[in-house]
Amino acid sequence: MQKLKQQVFDANMDLPRNGLVTFTWGNASAIDRERGLVVIKPSGIAYGNMKSDDMVVVDLQGNRVEGPWCPSSDTATHLALYRRYPQLGGVVHTHSTYATAWAQAGLAIPALGTTHADYFFGDIPCTRALSEEEVQEEYELNTGKVIVETLGTSDPLHTPGIVVYQHGPFTWGKDAADAVHHAVVMEAVARMAWIARSINPALKPIDTYLMNKHFMRKHGPNAYYGQ
Amino acid sequence: MQKLKQQVFDANMDLPRNGLVTFTWGNASAIDRERGLVVIKPSGIAYGNMKSDDMVVVDLQGNRVEGPWCPSSDTATHLALYRRYPQLGGVVHTHSTYATAWAQAGLAIPALGTTHADYFFGDIPCTRALSEEEVQEEYELNTGKVIVETLGTSDPLHTPGIVVYQHGPFTWGKDAADAVHHAVVMEAVARMAWIARSINPALKPIDTYLMNKHFMRKHGPNAYYGQ
Amino acid sequence: MQKLKQQVFDANMDLPRNGLVTFTWGNASAIDRERGLVVIKPSGIAYGNMKSDDMVVVDLQGNRVEGPWCPSSDTATHLALYRRYPQLGGVVHTHSTYATAWAQAGLAIPALGTTHADYFFGDIPCTRALSEEEVQEEYELNTGKVIVETLGTSDPLHTPGIVVYQHGPFTWGKDAADAVHHAVVMEAVARMAWIARSINPALKPIDTYLMNKHFMRKHGPNAYYGQ
Amino acid sequence: MQKLKQQVFDANMDLPRNGLVTFTWGNASAIDRERGLVVIKPSGIAYGNMKSDDMVVVDLQGNRVEGPWCPSSDTATHLALYRRYPQLGGVVHTHSTYATAWAQAGLAIPALGTTHADYFFGDIPCTRALSEEEVQEEYELNTGKVIVETLGTSDPLHTPGIVVYQHGPFTWGKDAADAVHHAVVMEAVARMAWIARSINPALKPIDTYLMNKHFMRKHGPNAYYGQ
Repeated sequence: MQKLKQQVFDANMDLPRNGLVTFTWGNASAIDRERGLVVIKPSGIAYGNMKSDDMVVVDLQGNRVEGPWCPSSDTATHLALYRRYPQLGGVVHTHSTYATAWAQAGLAIPALGTTHADYFFGDIPCTRALSEEEVQEEYELNTGKVIVETLGTSDPLHTPGIVVYQHGPFTWGKDAADAVHHAVVMEAVARMAWIARSINPALKPIDTYLMNKHFMRKHGPNAYYGQ
Repeated sequence: MQKLKQQVFDANMDLPRNGLVTFTWGNASAIDRERGLVVIKPSGIAYGNMKSDDMVVVDLQGNRVEGPWCPSSDTATHLALYRRYPQLGGVVHTHSTYATAWAQAGLAIPALGTTHADYFFGDIPCTRALSEEEVQEEYELNTGKVIVETLGTSDPLHTPGIVVYQHGPFTWGKDAADAVHHAVVMEAVARMAWIARSINPALKPIDTYLMNKHFMRKHGPNAYYGQ
Repeated sequence: MQKLKQQVFDANMDLPRNGLVTFTWGNASAIDRERGLVVIKPSGIAYGNMKSDDMVVVDLQGNRVEGPWCPSSDTATHLALYRRYPQLGGVVHTHSTYATAWAQAGLAIPALGTTHADYFFGDIPCTRALSEEEVQEEYELNTGKVIVETLGTSDPLHTPGIVVYQHGPFTWGKDAADAVHHAVVMEAVARMAWIARSINPALKPIDTYLMNKHFMRKHGPNAYYGQ
Repeated sequence: MQKLKQQVFDANMDLPRNGLVTFTWGNASAIDRERGLVVIKPSGIAYGNMKSDDMVVVDLQGNRVEGPWCPSSDTATHLALYRRYPQLGGVVHTHSTYATAWAQAGLAIPALGTTHADYFFGDIPCTRALSEEEVQEEYELNTGKVIVETLGTSDPLHTPGIVVYQHGPFTWGKDAADAVHHAVVMEAVARMAWIARSINPALKPIDTYLMNKHFMRKHGPNAYYGQ
């Protein structure tokens, strides 16, 4: 687990480095699929003082297996995603400015250009509001469930992130570094989408064939971008 | 007082470090409740040249007790807050961009998401305009009074900051570092709220039960966040 | 070619340094007109690991002549510009935030002030949408063709950049460094134009005689600016 | 003149350091009133390579007295201000983003809060458009004249800056450092004013008595701020 702890630590440290996290407002995790164990940031530890050995190991039911601290308060959300989607290797949550603004606006981040389509195949969805009951009982688990409900059966690596209504972004990927990468991308396209719509409220979404081209030249079976 | 001077010095230096203060447009203070003495930034000293020994000590009536300089021009505002609310250990004033823009707009910063609700239990209020008389006589004291009038009997640690109409933000906390922390939070949520409303002018405030959940999981009697 | 490789490497490294490129979202190239060879960034190599010897040399038909990697996926776009405009010595492509927002908005970046007129003689055009067929077959070549179609017979050094619809900016110049310079300028004026129109939606474009004065005092036959 | 050259050099270097200048888009000058000589940045020299000995000395009619380079293209504008207002010791011109956006919008930067009123006694005016003739003949001199026409007989140290229509900001002060200080302030209040009006298009200008209080407690005969 030492290697995975290091990867999760590095992923967590990359969040403030990329301007996505203030104070402790974020967390990254990764999973060892063979052993069914998840490594995640400890709760409430300042980034400046964190070491890789502070990372917490939990099983997929949330029982602490290793580590001196409580796991992040958002652990139940991460676990719900790992349980539902076997493709996922890493998950990230932040309160990054622009993605969070879309979450507060209660709107999907629209696919407006190729920057978006290079990573997200279509709009970045916004979840429905949780009910009062869902918030009061097992809030963090229900946050995971509403993400799963919103994604449904679509490939989570084709929509590697979402905004949770009135809360903020969650992203994921094949490992922790990939989830961080998608958090950076989502913040960038959230910012561009805000500015583009401010410039031209009547703009049109990206042409479907252009979106297909860009997503597929990077992620399709005949990908040639970045090869 | 040496330790408190160091804390107040550190808090003042954290303001430009966090992008909240240009030139000398801000000040932080803290109080020693046992001795009834307040340590505050000196007036008009550039941050680059300030040392912890430059901090000024005043009593709760504003008489200088120690230090080579005049206390900040805003001292009377800080003192009014310390006198009224025994819970306060530190106070900060800045002209940070986004919070000041809300102050100029004359509007409360609305509670739109969990980033806000993790620290502020409801909107961040905007004071009424001071009258001509209040500005001409004891302006800085009256600024403190209008903050107190706006907060009323609500717990100041549940609303750890305010924007003063056409002026800018004041924040507070259990000590000087906590007041700085709240100044950073207010600037972040002021920025997000501006962008969110620009994206969707018809957005709704955060659901009350979601606000309660987030505030109380950090600050309530059964807090579990960051433990 | 060693000197040109170094220039192209430096130009590529200047893109993230100027905040124009995140991850690998950009590329710079330059041409040796005598030998008819173009040096361009390799495809998908992270900026942090790139060396000048990683630059790829291709001929004007896109055949690789030298270098261990595939050339940038956007090579065909660069080559179309070099073939059509003998004045060009360098080309740059980025997804910089503000210029890309105008591309997503589908609008030319309007000439609103002297900052713009010091470098661009008139609006910075936005291309038409590519057809489905143009995207599916030889997409990158057709991106070059639609830029040429939009510029037409105007002097490309009087309009040293363009935004490609729903994609992002391309800029060019007498060499790679000049193309980077124009990418920085376009991002700056794209940002100013957004803010200026947000302040005053009814603003007027720059007076033609003021635009002429500024462009010509720098680029005209009797230029005296910066001499 | 060595000391004044150093001050002007330092002022010029402070412009990119404060994020006000990209490339060579700015210049600072200062005057030795006893000798009637002005020191100004040379034309078109990159900030990175500039030394204090590169500063150019001209007389009030613009004749070069000392220095290896041509003076800034904007010299005639600076000189017009020094000739008209004996109170001025330094002048700065930039194309800083937010102030330039107001210039492009063709609007005065409104006095909306105390940050503004601490330095500017009322709105920051925007000049009228220059006529075609004024642009074609002695453009830089006419830029100075239209600033003077706009300021009229008001105290230039009570309005230590202006935006020139479709161009950008000029600021001034008792020396070069003071003019830089005002350039930083104008950019900050230009940004705040944009955001504040975006939040609340119906906001009101700062109450006159509050503006008076803030300006006068810093600059009036009984100033007590920063003492």
